[in-house]
Amino acid sequence: MADSQQLQSNTDAGNNLPFAIIHRLPNFKFSLSWAEDIVSLIEPSDPLYPIHGPSARVAIDIGPSPIKSEHLDQYPSVEYIIGTSAGVDHIDLAECCRRNIRVTSAGGAFSEDGADYAIGLLIDVLRRISASDRYVRAGLWPVKGNYPLGNKLGGKRVGIVGLGNIGSLVAKRLEPFGCTIGYTSRNKKPQVPYQFYTTALDLANNSDALIVCCALTEKTRHVINHDVMKALGKRGIIVNIGRGALVDEKELVKFLVGSELGGAGLDVFENEPQVPKELMTMDNVVLSPHKAILTPESFEALRELIRENLKAFFSNKPLLCELNLSG
Amino acid sequence: MADSQQLQSNTDAGNNLPFAIIHRLPNFKFSLSWAEDIVSLIEPSDPLYPIHGPSARVAIDIGPSPIKSEHLDQYPSVEYIIGTSAGVDHIDLAECCRRNIRVTSAGGAFSEDGADYAIGLLIDVLRRISASDRYVRAGLWPVKGNYPLGNKLGGKRVGIVGLGNIGSLVAKRLEPFGCTIGYTSRNKKPQVPYQFYTTALDLANNSDALIVCCALTEKTRHVINHDVMKALGKRGIIVNIGRGALVDEKELVKFLVGSELGGAGLDVFENEPQVPKELMTMDNVVLSPHKAILTPESFEALRELIRENLKAFFSNKPLLCELNLSG
Repeated sequence: MADSQQLQSNTDAGNNLPFAIIHRLPNFKFSLSWAEDIVSLIEPSDPLYPIHGPSARVAIDIGPSPIKSEHLDQYPSVEYIIGTSAGVDHIDLAECCRRNIRVTSAGGAFSEDGADYAIGLLIDVLRRISASDRYVRAGLWPVKGNYPLGNKLGGKRVGIVGLGNIGSLVAKRLEPFGCTIGYTSRNKKPQVPYQFYTTALDLANNSDALIVCCALTEKTRHVINHDVMKALGKRGIIVNIGRGALVDEKELVKFLVGSELGGAGLDVFENEPQVPKELMTMDNVVLSPHKAILTPESFEALRELIRENLKAFFSNKPLLCELNLSG
Repeated sequence: MADSQQLQSNTDAGNNLPFAIIHRLPNFKFSLSWAEDIVSLIEPSDPLYPIHGPSARVAIDIGPSPIKSEHLDQYPSVEYIIGTSAGVDHIDLAECCRRNIRVTSAGGAFSEDGADYAIGLLIDVLRRISASDRYVRAGLWPVKGNYPLGNKLGGKRVGIVGLGNIGSLVAKRLEPFGCTIGYTSRNKKPQVPYQFYTTALDLANNSDALIVCCALTEKTRHVINHDVMKALGKRGIIVNIGRGALVDEKELVKFLVGSELGGAGLDVFENEPQVPKELMTMDNVVLSPHKAILTPESFEALRELIRENLKAFFSNKPLLCELNLSG
C-alpha cells in the first residue's frame, strides 16, 4: 500500500477498527492489505502514530525483525505480538513474559515447506543435482563425459537435530526412502519410532547425515560444532534449514576445505547474505539464499493464520500457535 | 582388467570356468573382475575369441549397448543375455525370443535411485534449488536481495507416467509430502490407492506435474507430446528420468520458451549428450546428465544381482529379473 493510502486508512475515523502496529526493519516489506478489514494498520514512522499508536493493543512483527525491550517501550499498550516467522529467537520473550505480552508464531504455516526443502537439499547434496546441472550448463557433458556419481539416500542413517514441527515432517518424508532415522531434541518423544540421542554428538556418532532444524536459542547456538563434525566424519553431510548460527560456520568451512566432511546443503548462514567464499566453488555443497520455508502457498497459510488470530484476539477467543512464555 | 591379464585369464585352461562374452560399445567401460570366480570373460576383439567365444552360452550387455540380430549372429551359442541397465529398449527382444535366448534386466537394482532422483528433481524445479544455488554462487544475494519464491510441493497433483518398479517407488515417496497421486500405465493396478487414467493426456488434464518413468517402446515414444503439454498447462512441470525420446523434445523446448509450461527437470534427452541450447539459461529447468539411476550403492546391488544370475544359470536355477519375452 502507498504511504498516502496508509495515511488515509489510519485517519478514517469512520471504520471503527482497532489499530495494529506494523513492526519491521526498514528493508522488510510485507503487504498486510488483506488484514485491513479487521484492523487499521499503523507504523511508528506514520505522522499520526502519536495519536493512535500508543493505544494499539497489537503489534505485527514482520519476518525476523528484532523486538527488544526498547521497542516495547514505544508500544505501551501492546498486549499481543504476532510473529510472522517460524522462529522467534529475534523476539525478547523474557521481556514479553515480564510485561505480560502474549506472542504467537507462524507455527506450522511454513513447516511443510521447510521439511520439503530439507529433503530437496539432502537429495541434491547426495546425488549432486545442482553441481551436475552446472556441469551441463557449462557445456561439459559432451566434452568431459559422464559426471561423477553421487551417493544413494536409501540405507543412510539420517539424524534430525530438533524434532519439532519441521523435524517431525522431515522424518515422515524420509521413511519411504529407506533411511534409518535418529534424532536429538530437548526431550525424548514417547510417540515416535525413531532412536533418540541425548546430544547432537551422540547423534552424529550414529549418523551419515544431519538435518538441522531446531530453534536457535543460547543453548543451541553452534550446536553443530567441531566435535559434532568430527563425529559425523569424512562422508558425513550437514543440511541446515534452521538458522545459520546453529552451525559453527568457521569450523564447517575448515572441515569442508579439508575434505573432513562429505558435503553440506545450507539454506542459512551466520552472516546473511554473506556466504563464505570458500564454499562458492565446491560441488559437494548446495548454497541456498534463506528461502526454505517460503512459498506463495505458505504465505497464504500464514495470512489465514494471522487473520484468524486477529479476530480471536479482539473477541477474546484462544489464539493459535501461542507460545508458552512461562515455560 | 588389463588386456594381458584378460588374455591370461582366458587361456588358463586350469580354471575350468565357463566363458561369458562381454558385449559393449567401445566407450562403455565397466569392470567385471568381481565375476571372475564364476566365469571367464572374453570380448569379440580378443585374439582367442575364435577359440572360446563361439561356444559361450552367456553374454553380458554393458549399459545400453545395442544388441541386434547381427550381434547375435556372432554369438551362436548364447542362450542368455544379462542386461545391466534398467531399460532394455536397446536389446532386440523379438529376435531374442525367436532364437530362444533368455534376457534379464537390472530389475530393481536402480529403481530406488531413480525414484529418489525424480523426487529430487521435482523439489528442485518447484523450489528453484539449483537456480538459487547459481544465484548465490554468482554473488547476487547481497546485491539483488531475496531470490523469487518457488512453489509448494504439498497439495500438488502429481501424475506418474508408468507405474512400474520406479514409478511405484516415486508414488510411495510422494505420499508423505501431501500430494494427490495419479498414474497412467499399460494396465490399471488393482492394488494401488492412486487414481488411474487410461492415457497420458487424461492424466495431464488432472495433474500439476508429470513424472515420466516408463520404459521406452514404440508405443511410448513421444508419449509426452504437444497435446499432453498443452493439457498440463502454464504452471505444469515435467520431470523425465526415463528416456529422452519419451518426451517430444522439440515441443518441450517450444512450450518452455513460450512460457506455456511451468518448468522441467530432465535427466534424459533425445540426443544425449546434446542438450537443447534454449534450456541452458532457464531457471525453471534443471538439467542433469543422465545419472538418475546411478550410485555406487546401486552398482553394488547390480554386481550382486549379476553374480546370483550367473550362478543360477549355470546350475539351472531360476533367474532373477527375467523378462517374459513371449508376452
